[in-house]
Amino acid sequence: MEIIKDPTKMQGVALSLKNQGKTIAIVPTMGFLHDGHLALVDKAKEIADIVITSLFVNPKQFAPNEDFDSYPRDFEHDQALLKAKNVDYLFAPDALDMYPIGFSTSLHISGITEVFEGTTRPTHFDGVALVVLKLLEISQCNFAIFGQKDYQQTLVVKRMIADLNLPVQMVICPIYREPSGLAMSSRNRYLTDEEKEKASIIFLALEAAKKAIAQGERKRKIINSIILSNIKTIPSIKIDYINTARAESLETPDEFFPGEEIVMLVAVYVGRTRLIDNALIKIPTAL
Amino acid sequence: MEIIKDPTKMQGVALSLKNQGKTIAIVPTMGFLHDGHLALVDKAKEIADIVITSLFVNPKQFAPNEDFDSYPRDFEHDQALLKAKNVDYLFAPDALDMYPIGFSTSLHISGITEVFEGTTRPTHFDGVALVVLKLLEISQCNFAIFGQKDYQQTLVVKRMIADLNLPVQMVICPIYREPSGLAMSSRNRYLTDEEKEKASIIFLALEAAKKAIAQGERKRKIINSIILSNIKTIPSIKIDYINTARAESLETPDEFFPGEEIVMLVAVYVGRTRLIDNALIKIPTAL
Repeated sequence: MEIIKDPTKMQGVALSLKNQGKTIAIVPTMGFLHDGHLALVDKAKEIADIVITSLFVNPKQFAPNEDFDSYPRDFEHDQALLKAKNVDYLFAPDALDMYPIGFSTSLHISGITEVFEGTTRPTHFDGVALVVLKLLEISQCNFAIFGQKDYQQTLVVKRMIADLNLPVQMVICPIYREPSGLAMSSRNRYLTDEEKEKASIIFLALEAAKKAIAQGERKRKIINSIILSNIKTIPSIKIDYINTARAESLETPDEFFPGEEIVMLVAVYVGRTRLIDNALIKIPTAL
Repeated sequence: MEIIKDPTKMQGVALSLKNQGKTIAIVPTMGFLHDGHLALVDKAKEIADIVITSLFVNPKQFAPNEDFDSYPRDFEHDQALLKAKNVDYLFAPDALDMYPIGFSTSLHISGITEVFEGTTRPTHFDGVALVVLKLLEISQCNFAIFGQKDYQQTLVVKRMIADLNLPVQMVICPIYREPSGLAMSSRNRYLTDEEKEKASIIFLALEAAKKAIAQGERKRKIINSIILSNIKTIPSIKIDYINTARAESLETPDEFFPGEEIVMLVAVYVGRTRLIDNALIKIPTAL
């Protein structure tokens, strides 16, 4: 595994690999890797000749009041994990490599960025879109691998790839969970063992709603209330939002149609840590 | 010459040419081609294996009060000119091919877009940057050919290419002029013969200022006043702006340094037609 810091050098390597007919997959990460990230790497290795993992805590996707400075970092450990996975390139630029003095370009995706996570984090997705666009260009990738955990992010990136005609295929991998059901996240590092146990209710709540949907429930507010009432069994969890939406558009009709793909989206605070989770399900066409 | 309307098809063709090891140059145009455009095509043919000319009047770079609807169009004639030049592909999408229903992405380049043309046309350059980004992706080009006529546009595109790590080399060709000195432009079509003759003063004014600079003039306001006093000899011409700036940053110091590359920028109305022109010159290091 070669570690590259300079974007121009990384792109030069990628262009030369492309010229040799190799296919490239990138796994964009902010580091502090867990098994969820490594599952994305496995997927990348399965579909492409060359795997580039990027490790960059992107300042542009954090608001000033957010945890950019305290976001967990452990480069040595991340490096060892990726090396063990036989990743070909670890691309690890500094902020000034990505956003040098004079940098003047920003990106805005309207609509889909303005709801759910976008309500609480209004500049977040534009920052994500910008860094992803740069990473796709630098890596010259054929495939970009993302986790379903950041569900709304996958929609934003998909929208950007389509709108900008990027010749990249996006691959979305299922949420990777702890045995308790807690979705893996670098931010779980902020949780105490007790909080982790409490946080596992999120998955159980989503599962309960899934069961109700499988049994015929189509009313959005009832689905939401099933998730809410389950999470409320742990009174110390503070709800940011719980809602159910059409999976592609994030529209929130009162009732879903048979056959529709929907997504249940949850954001809560466990202690001071904000956690998100989601579940996709298709409304059954017949009972 | 093959005419392609569909972006996905154009990109598929381009990707397959790239896989065959061909280099590609794109000449982005809004059509109503003149010899200036054809000089860009010649340059493209000189440096790349495959030349794609795009012909797209981009609605996103016109403000509602501007001449999008009346912008001159003559597809048949353009097509014949490009065919005669042995262009490989004419990419001519419709607005809905480029911006389908649901399109949500916009781009903003700060700083350089906010002065000169940006004062009069505040949304213009973001619209230009967006369409150029899409055209670069669709064409998978190694080279993007632009004319110096739209000088500030070349700076905006250069900034975007650098900021987004696009693996594209920008090539800027000199301004192509009528025998009178009038810079060629599709908008010259709006001019009467008498207005055309009057408009040739712009070039003469820039030449007069160039001469003064070659003879030692370095004070910005004096350079501007030379251009102004020359243009004022045609009283019916209305000045939008006349200014001189550092060529790369468009900064406007009181006095330029020896050895600096500077640009003189002019925007005027001749009748109801807005014309722009410019000249690059290096401040002499010694007299």
